[in-house]
Amino acid sequence: MGDIRVGIVGVTGYTGIELARLLARHPEAVITYLSSESQGGNSLMTVFPHLTGADLPELEVFDPVAAVEECDALFLARGNGWAMQHASELITAGAKLIDLAADFRLADPALWMDFYGHEHQAKGLLDEAVYGIPELHRTAIEQARIVANPGCYPTSAILALAPAVAGQWIESSDIIISSTSGVSGAGRSRTETAYLFSEVNDNYRAYNVTKHRHTPEIEQELSGLAGEALEITFTPHLAPMTRGIHTTAYAHVAPEAGEDDIRQAYLDFYADAPFVQITEPGEWPETKQVAGTNFCRICPIVIPRTGRLVVLSVIDNLVKGAAGQAVQNFNLMFGLDETLGLNFPGIYP
Amino acid sequence: MGDIRVGIVGVTGYTGIELARLLARHPEAVITYLSSESQGGNSLMTVFPHLTGADLPELEVFDPVAAVEECDALFLARGNGWAMQHASELITAGAKLIDLAADFRLADPALWMDFYGHEHQAKGLLDEAVYGIPELHRTAIEQARIVANPGCYPTSAILALAPAVAGQWIESSDIIISSTSGVSGAGRSRTETAYLFSEVNDNYRAYNVTKHRHTPEIEQELSGLAGEALEITFTPHLAPMTRGIHTTAYAHVAPEAGEDDIRQAYLDFYADAPFVQITEPGEWPETKQVAGTNFCRICPIVIPRTGRLVVLSVIDNLVKGAAGQAVQNFNLMFGLDETLGLNFPGIYP
Amino acid sequence: MGDIRVGIVGVTGYTGIELARLLARHPEAVITYLSSESQGGNSLMTVFPHLTGADLPELEVFDPVAAVEECDALFLARGNGWAMQHASELITAGAKLIDLAADFRLADPALWMDFYGHEHQAKGLLDEAVYGIPELHRTAIEQARIVANPGCYPTSAILALAPAVAGQWIESSDIIISSTSGVSGAGRSRTETAYLFSEVNDNYRAYNVTKHRHTPEIEQELSGLAGEALEITFTPHLAPMTRGIHTTAYAHVAPEAGEDDIRQAYLDFYADAPFVQITEPGEWPETKQVAGTNFCRICPIVIPRTGRLVVLSVIDNLVKGAAGQAVQNFNLMFGLDETLGLNFPGIYP
Amino acid sequence: MGDIRVGIVGVTGYTGIELARLLARHPEAVITYLSSESQGGNSLMTVFPHLTGADLPELEVFDPVAAVEECDALFLARGNGWAMQHASELITAGAKLIDLAADFRLADPALWMDFYGHEHQAKGLLDEAVYGIPELHRTAIEQARIVANPGCYPTSAILALAPAVAGQWIESSDIIISSTSGVSGAGRSRTETAYLFSEVNDNYRAYNVTKHRHTPEIEQELSGLAGEALEITFTPHLAPMTRGIHTTAYAHVAPEAGEDDIRQAYLDFYADAPFVQITEPGEWPETKQVAGTNFCRICPIVIPRTGRLVVLSVIDNLVKGAAGQAVQNFNLMFGLDETLGLNFPGIYP
Repeated sequence: MGDIRVGIVGVTGYTGIELARLLARHPEAVITYLSSESQGGNSLMTVFPHLTGADLPELEVFDPVAAVEECDALFLARGNGWAMQHASELITAGAKLIDLAADFRLADPALWMDFYGHEHQAKGLLDEAVYGIPELHRTAIEQARIVANPGCYPTSAILALAPAVAGQWIESSDIIISSTSGVSGAGRSRTETAYLFSEVNDNYRAYNVTKHRHTPEIEQELSGLAGEALEITFTPHLAPMTRGIHTTAYAHVAPEAGEDDIRQAYLDFYADAPFVQITEPGEWPETKQVAGTNFCRICPIVIPRTGRLVVLSVIDNLVKGAAGQAVQNFNLMFGLDETLGLNFPGIYP
Repeated sequence: MGDIRVGIVGVTGYTGIELARLLARHPEAVITYLSSESQGGNSLMTVFPHLTGADLPELEVFDPVAAVEECDALFLARGNGWAMQHASELITAGAKLIDLAADFRLADPALWMDFYGHEHQAKGLLDEAVYGIPELHRTAIEQARIVANPGCYPTSAILALAPAVAGQWIESSDIIISSTSGVSGAGRSRTETAYLFSEVNDNYRAYNVTKHRHTPEIEQELSGLAGEALEITFTPHLAPMTRGIHTTAYAHVAPEAGEDDIRQAYLDFYADAPFVQITEPGEWPETKQVAGTNFCRICPIVIPRTGRLVVLSVIDNLVKGAAGQAVQNFNLMFGLDETLGLNFPGIYP
Repeated sequence: MGDIRVGIVGVTGYTGIELARLLARHPEAVITYLSSESQGGNSLMTVFPHLTGADLPELEVFDPVAAVEECDALFLARGNGWAMQHASELITAGAKLIDLAADFRLADPALWMDFYGHEHQAKGLLDEAVYGIPELHRTAIEQARIVANPGCYPTSAILALAPAVAGQWIESSDIIISSTSGVSGAGRSRTETAYLFSEVNDNYRAYNVTKHRHTPEIEQELSGLAGEALEITFTPHLAPMTRGIHTTAYAHVAPEAGEDDIRQAYLDFYADAPFVQITEPGEWPETKQVAGTNFCRICPIVIPRTGRLVVLSVIDNLVKGAAGQAVQNFNLMFGLDETLGLNFPGIYP
Repeated sequence: MGDIRVGIVGVTGYTGIELARLLARHPEAVITYLSSESQGGNSLMTVFPHLTGADLPELEVFDPVAAVEECDALFLARGNGWAMQHASELITAGAKLIDLAADFRLADPALWMDFYGHEHQAKGLLDEAVYGIPELHRTAIEQARIVANPGCYPTSAILALAPAVAGQWIESSDIIISSTSGVSGAGRSRTETAYLFSEVNDNYRAYNVTKHRHTPEIEQELSGLAGEALEITFTPHLAPMTRGIHTTAYAHVAPEAGEDDIRQAYLDFYADAPFVQITEPGEWPETKQVAGTNFCRICPIVIPRTGRLVVLSVIDNLVKGAAGQAVQNFNLMFGLDETLGLNFPGIYP
């Protein structure tokens, strides 16, 4: 157990308990603060016995003064729109923030308004907040007071396409992203008919086909890499599994680019990225290969007949797509090795 | 029970037992012949108790003379390459054939060689065999002696795109088909590690990304509709579910085509197709909605921002993707109502 | 389509839609009335597209006058406590009732009070209501105006043990019933965290171990067969599957009773029961073998070493455990063949 | 990474890779030897990418000389009957053995003959081999050269009943054990139709009802605790999930024993057992609560009406039921803290 004091605000959701799982064994962090609006006064292990054995403080109803006094870093795992109301007070008081909601992901507040339906309430902080994909923004994250942890789909899609876009290996005007997620991505509080076991089991469907909140995140980051504004077509799907996101991305290959060139570009781009694995041709990545881990496996494939690049990528939506990436960002923000507390094998089968 | 005598050759696979399930209650058919190489002499119900109550003959090792004597129609549910060796004898003796394998699907024998790895052995019959999608080839099927029942992915993909291609609502040079299948599509004899429950459960993956045998079928049919040769990019995926195929197809919308026009074109194209349902905007089709049925649900959506048509379609891979479509073809070949024996509700949840 | 007019009250739950699935193809019934408190004015197919193709009336908010005018029989698929408030009015007006809730299952109103927590409100009807297991009460059901359709667990457990108890093949003081259910048994309105896909998937648990409402039903029926009051130990469990109940029942074998005798007793007891199958030794029944059907498969096994009878039984909880058995009861109440509308194969895999 | 050199013989099965997962992060062990008959020369991570990041030696075809030279302890994860042929040579050469197969579990070689069908080939070692449930045999394990790691069902059943049997809280002549396992218990090499996803999914069944190889293990250990020979009735079941065993055990409560007494007896019995959790009344254990961990959760319940003790227990079959318990035994054999390398939270959902 370490001596960087960390707190998790909103710990009883799937993202919150995944943070607790990871931080409880982090060698440099000690969990000193856990908040839950619904379970204040209880022990987290009563609700979530899988955490038995971890040394965790009692759940409290959120109090900003207590949170900041007891913590050097706060992981904010509340709903969208919460962090923007509290961030200013918390960072002023000295805490570093990793927000796992969407509040600080979009640099343009007009996009927030468009996709989340109300005025952004902390526009002054948008400039300093850093989009938390370490593979793209490592240096900025190291300096940041606020990291906006990305959505699960964007992590999967951006990592899949970043080398191709940055290296202009594809015609970036024409990207299609077809992704499939496990159901835990909907969260633990979505107690709706559509997420009941009997409705999801043995079922597969697309959703939010015309407009999904993760689209502008993906476009923002890929546009940044391309040096021009991109528009992508993104279709999310739901599969009958608990964890995992699989992305299949499609784009036209740039003239004269071959699979070997592109594969090498991917290897180079991620040469210093400890959590990205470029798989061999024919080793199509599978979501279960990364279950419980912070890894992202990526395979770029060129289909010569149609001149397409097809990129496959997989992550665990709750780890590299949420809590694990948050810990990775935390490591960078505190000058630690990026892999600390995250370098363990997955669980299979 | 009817008086058209039907036989199922290779009845102990998933397609075979699904044919038995459907034909056992077909009002105009009577099952008079069942063959199985491995279970000759046994009762089908011993191996498959879900068929209890059906009035079925004993399993026999295939014998062409007996098969033709006892049957007016034969459903061939053997592996690829079997039907081409027996078709000539069987039709000469007077049986009508519905082949559920790939042998007669590709009109061009060079494609067979390319995708199946050996010379086609019944080239003389390729001309008269009809590709068995009734929604496209109803009249030809009515006259056919040999119907080549389509693959499950092609059924899902071709129905999703046919109206758009035929009506030139899309730029047909640029089609992407991203499909997801349940595991029963791999069949009952694929006892490989990759299909064990523990490997598939909570897992999602792409496969055969660079070359899949269903690609030339899709191209053949869409090219026919377009009046020019098309090349498509097709990616199959495996989801942890037993039945169902979900296709998400992407193409650029032709200039000035809007969603309402395209939706109307789909409604018109399928006006006489009893098993195709065009869903309302926002009612994204789900595989479980068609489980056990011969229906195909389709939703065409235009994304104005990116100028893309996204078409979603779902079928049950073992029904509309195999056995149900075979019965639909059988109905047409024998002058019966297309829906006979197939017009029952699905099972949900 | 037949000419016995039937209505389903509370059709939008899992039991209700399963009734619609079965009655829509029943050769002697015509669905003339469907009620739903939440969806009045809508079409059932809008919410449940798997019923597409069935000829169904529009959903109405329940009105007893309309219901009785339009129906000869009413299937009541509302929550516990509803039928007791309406039964008297409905039967007086001439409708025959099949209640799929618990209101009329327990002959002793004190047990109702004990297990359901409030005074029974139609005690005067308890005498005439018949417990709807046709295999035990066929004659009484034929005469009944009110049939109390059994719970899913009781159907599975009572059918498993009836021949052994009735024939005194076991020491009836000492019965243990360990049952496992799919999640659809919890119903469609139980939108609680515990039934979310992510919580149920890859999970198995017991529940209501100390007191379950189905225990007194089982004891009532087995006591009737034994001719003395029995007390059983019943433990329900939840497995990650949609449909199916598997019961494993244990009892001490009576002195000198052997497996062959007991097997013969089971065959004799169910000689006239079209939906009960006694499986061969070693053919352990599986829930998936009866999915979608009204069958119950039973295997009695004697363990000589410990002198135990172990009985395995499987049903589909929504069919033989609910809607299918209700249709079977309906058939008997209207003088029809018991199997009408129910004699179709299951769906596998 | 520690300096006790360990090897895994037969590492490519589910038990083997679970050992690799656990030992790779064990602070006092270093994996120096991995053998695989089928994959010699390859890297384990090529076949099992979830282990990426672990520092593992290349796979070798088993060679006893190399194995002993390179290892202080060997985990034997081969099939039944293998260890008895090699144990003598290996321990003579100085290696400590933890055998995860059945070879040394049964002290009576006649039982081996009866349940495994051939003569035991290392009878001389049966006396010194210790049955590896640390909660029962901690001291003997600390001294052992050969530990016979228990079966998954026996671990679950013995831990559930040990305090009740040892304290004579139940009538031990009359125990029923009804257990349910996830499919990974069948192993990775059982590529049979019965374990295909499509056959297991949405299915529940009993198997080996009349005779299961785990029965004599359970009887041996419970008899030892009771001080007299017990015979139990044991029924294993298969549920559609990957990991987990849930046991529901039944016995008559001894006269005048109440739930509070029994609960206290359980707490006392396991007071020094770091991996056993006795849950509160009403907190029925769930398999998913222990997924990936070495914990066993147990809840004893008295049903006063029928005088029954019902004990619920859950473990992860691959961890506490196999690889985790093996590491726990290893810790004791090498004088380490019992929890070393095993004290991490589970993964949920």
